[in-house]
Amino acid sequence: MYVVNIEDLNGTDRDVKSETWRSRRMVLAKEGVGFSFHETTIYAGTTSTFHYQNHYEAVYCVAGRGTLTSEETGESWDLRDGTLYLLNEHDKHTVRAEEELRLICTFNPPVTGREVHDENGVYPLVTED
Amino acid sequence: MYVVNIEDLNGTDRDVKSETWRSRRMVLAKEGVGFSFHETTIYAGTTSTFHYQNHYEAVYCVAGRGTLTSEETGESWDLRDGTLYLLNEHDKHTVRAEEELRLICTFNPPVTGREVHDENGVYPLVTED
Repeated sequence: MYVVNIEDLNGTDRDVKSETWRSRRMVLAKEGVGFSFHETTIYAGTTSTFHYQNHYEAVYCVAGRGTLTSEETGESWDLRDGTLYLLNEHDKHTVRAEEELRLICTFNPPVTGREVHDENGVYPLVTED
Repeated sequence: MYVVNIEDLNGTDRDVKSETWRSRRMVLAKEGVGFSFHETTIYAGTTSTFHYQNHYEAVYCVAGRGTLTSEETGESWDLRDGTLYLLNEHDKHTVRAEEELRLICTFNPPVTGREVHDENGVYPLVTED
């Protein structure tokens, strides 16, 4: 059993910040369970584009308000408490936060914590040795 | 891209209820991403014992108050907004909800939706064909 409170991760290497979002990684590849599990905050008034060519991701909104747009099809959805989106086709997508969004995220394969988004918002595939 | 609101699952076969908890399964094995993703509500004033001998599970509390106890070691932890526990050793455990708990859960291997807890609170391993 491994128990952690998100506040314990503040300022550690599991607390990753960009201009528009912050991601705290509670479960990483090193935990050895085959997925990673993060809480991502997207700041109010920001727009972020993501593209995970090497990962599946489920994103579950538990607070805030925003808009999700598929850059593949142009389709949009409201994001609010209770909305889940699943990137099961490696869809390039944009998240606009009207209010700060609290997003709970699972990645497969698990993120190691050493990835950085490249200039296209893409995570490379990094595996644990 | 697959987008769903949890309210859309109410009363469907993805909405599974027991005496002490309710689990709405937003992502199942059939989605083909290698994990399942659920929101589980544990009702206030109840105690539930779980044992997933065939699965890893991450459980993230985003609302409510309770207590988690390892049935392996007897150790206990407070459950509150921001607490995550990871069942990385198939630990038998008990959750006591002082207030209704809102838990976000990821399973690997993914739950198919056809499992039921047996008399020991154990999920069998069921795979998609």
